[in-house]
Amino acid sequence: MRHDHLLTAKQLSRADIEAVLDRASEFAADPAAFRERHPELLLALCFFEPSTRTKMSFETAAKRLGGDIVDMGSVESSSVKKGESLADTVRVIEGYADAIVLRHPKQGAAQLASEYVDVPVVNAGDGAGHHPSQTLLDLYTIRENAGLDDLSIGILGDLKYGRTVHSLAHALTKFDARQHFISPESLKLPRSVRYDLHEAGANVREHESLEDVLPNLDVLYVTRIQRERFPDEEEYRKVAGKYSIDADTLEHARDDLSIMHPLPRVDEIAPELDDTEHATYFSQAHNGVPVRMALLDSLL
Amino acid sequence: MRHDHLLTAKQLSRADIEAVLDRASEFAADPAAFRERHPELLLALCFFEPSTRTKMSFETAAKRLGGDIVDMGSVESSSVKKGESLADTVRVIEGYADAIVLRHPKQGAAQLASEYVDVPVVNAGDGAGHHPSQTLLDLYTIRENAGLDDLSIGILGDLKYGRTVHSLAHALTKFDARQHFISPESLKLPRSVRYDLHEAGANVREHESLEDVLPNLDVLYVTRIQRERFPDEEEYRKVAGKYSIDADTLEHARDDLSIMHPLPRVDEIAPELDDTEHATYFSQAHNGVPVRMALLDSLL
Amino acid sequence: MRHDHLLTAKQLSRADIEAVLDRASEFAADPAAFRERHPELLLALCFFEPSTRTKMSFETAAKRLGGDIVDMGSVESSSVKKGESLADTVRVIEGYADAIVLRHPKQGAAQLASEYVDVPVVNAGDGAGHHPSQTLLDLYTIRENAGLDDLSIGILGDLKYGRTVHSLAHALTKFDARQHFISPESLKLPRSVRYDLHEAGANVREHESLEDVLPNLDVLYVTRIQRERFPDEEEYRKVAGKYSIDADTLEHARDDLSIMHPLPRVDEIAPELDDTEHATYFSQAHNGVPVRMALLDSLL
Repeated sequence: MRHDHLLTAKQLSRADIEAVLDRASEFAADPAAFRERHPELLLALCFFEPSTRTKMSFETAAKRLGGDIVDMGSVESSSVKKGESLADTVRVIEGYADAIVLRHPKQGAAQLASEYVDVPVVNAGDGAGHHPSQTLLDLYTIRENAGLDDLSIGILGDLKYGRTVHSLAHALTKFDARQHFISPESLKLPRSVRYDLHEAGANVREHESLEDVLPNLDVLYVTRIQRERFPDEEEYRKVAGKYSIDADTLEHARDDLSIMHPLPRVDEIAPELDDTEHATYFSQAHNGVPVRMALLDSLL
Repeated sequence: MRHDHLLTAKQLSRADIEAVLDRASEFAADPAAFRERHPELLLALCFFEPSTRTKMSFETAAKRLGGDIVDMGSVESSSVKKGESLADTVRVIEGYADAIVLRHPKQGAAQLASEYVDVPVVNAGDGAGHHPSQTLLDLYTIRENAGLDDLSIGILGDLKYGRTVHSLAHALTKFDARQHFISPESLKLPRSVRYDLHEAGANVREHESLEDVLPNLDVLYVTRIQRERFPDEEEYRKVAGKYSIDADTLEHARDDLSIMHPLPRVDEIAPELDDTEHATYFSQAHNGVPVRMALLDSLL
Repeated sequence: MRHDHLLTAKQLSRADIEAVLDRASEFAADPAAFRERHPELLLALCFFEPSTRTKMSFETAAKRLGGDIVDMGSVESSSVKKGESLADTVRVIEGYADAIVLRHPKQGAAQLASEYVDVPVVNAGDGAGHHPSQTLLDLYTIRENAGLDDLSIGILGDLKYGRTVHSLAHALTKFDARQHFISPESLKLPRSVRYDLHEAGANVREHESLEDVLPNLDVLYVTRIQRERFPDEEEYRKVAGKYSIDADTLEHARDDLSIMHPLPRVDEIAPELDDTEHATYFSQAHNGVPVRMALLDSLL
């Protein structure tokens, strides 16, 4: 990979992705061997929105490489309150750090930041926009569990608003994957995304029910259906219940089906599945560390 | 010590305690010698409630051992807000860190967390439950100043709600200590704790006034009486005044009496005592570092 | 420099200042050479008020020297809420750290803290009081860009409330500087500060308009005029507009005029100047790192 910034997964070619995943595998196999890899690294964490796993796993990644972080802290404890523009904030912070990880509620924020600074910017979520390191760890997890070739994946839940899903779906068009989208009518893939996938030559089908397609899946990627998307509680419950997964749901699934979820989950996956071979969501979260180590390594 | 987790001081035998205190003494004597002891250590700090000294001293301990921390941040800035369960949060975080320090408002939280993860969990306070590293640093401080054998200790103030006190009292039953509990009637030791101490063979007496017992004490452990325990301000003032300590109070105390306090204090100990030989509460707080270094060292 | 604490820029002689700036230049020239300079350093960051650049640059400075930090966190997440006095808080924290950086809303807070602890205290802002490391980085920036000898500097904006400005003006009396103060009548330098500068032998003039003086300036130091200083919005706009800088304003400025600003800015400097040779405010912020490295180095 030779990029100055990582703003969206779309900027990555298949070769770019494979290079990061290969490097991540090396890091995962023997973390201790890389403890002195980037002793000079100071990574700025600029989170304008709450985050646990993304922030902690970037922090862990930097430290596992021998580096360290400088944390902007919460917006409440920063100069942002005083009306400073994002362009000014990042131009100050580039003087402290070797790279900037940015999460911001506004779409395009990371792009804008990247135009103002000389250090690499990693987009860690820009509102309804992109979150490419999540896509990379999703791909890594799929590759570890089912392989990215001849893959049959189901993506379930809120396909309308989930940026995670759009980004993953697009990245999968670079591999040999059959994608099944399963959602209620009101949360279907947006037209623009469907068109985009079509243009990229995706092998895609849409379903309202998981039943028909489940027996053929290698991977089932579950997302959270948010209460606030529905006008009334009643309607929400009906839909959320229909798209949640438990042991009964999986009766006709393959034994080696991997269930993924970007977390946090609420009721989408029953805890009874946590100790089964299907449950891949915790190791998926853990994969954030080697993948982000590899990502930082490629940008430095 | 051979334990997977540290959940309560009760799980520690006398030998366990002495091993940690001995190691803490070594760390305190020559901190520089251990600066490379655990360069691989990443300690997750998961504080679901505010904390200054516990959190900072665990952070200091990890760093003085050559390690580092990953901080979950405040609940407001984390996924907990999105409704994630504690079991899920710690299962994600165990993928980032080598051990987890957990403070949580709910009793039993650390026990629950420990059932879900493979890395060591240290209970840093679970509501009305336990806070074993506080007990260890209290014991360390007593041992440094008065010795744990043939000890005469007074424990003063709120004995009803103070978890610190219950835990310390129980731990002292493993040593040769005479314990004097001094409190207003309304804040006496709960029956269950008294029973517990009795079962453990404690040498215990209860008093309403400090006067009679003070001249014989090696250590006086003062705790804070909280305003909110009292129905009216008047009543609170009367009681708080009676159980606060100043130079006059100590007229008949032994010259080598050590006064301890878990801090923060409000009005329980007059600042005029801070520069006397009696004042042990600041060094008690400082002892949190070598004791937590020893504790981490024993768990890793 | 041989001081126990850094509480105000006034305590520094010209020789002290030059020693820190010289050392800062060395650090800036080859940061990698000093990566192992203070591996034992743990710096406590005690910020009782929000801060981005001061806090992050102290953190960066400690880490670029091979050290690390322990962060007290926000007041909301600390024992301060429980009513602990500042004297108690810093006496606890001195047991964790090798030096304390303190920002506090009350004037005199750092002075008070320094009377209670044995580790060095650096005042990082005490209300309307002092912020000496800001003054040092301002001096460093002036020296890099225009030199401190035979200097002609304009200081513009809110000269009444800006602690940054008072401190810088006083420090400049130790060098060969002509100082021009430009402000609306209502935000003129306070009498006491003017007297103070006079006593120190300052070469000072006051102006209501930038026009006359601009062509002779080497440096123009701009500060923010805060809305809350004005009784009505109308009045604020008029004044703020008159004391803001854009390309037109600079028509008669020298080509090598350096524009400085302590940041964050709001509308005082038009973004169109950011890419000109005049814009020195971002590198001024970046200079916080080597200057604070030098400062810490001198105190340890």
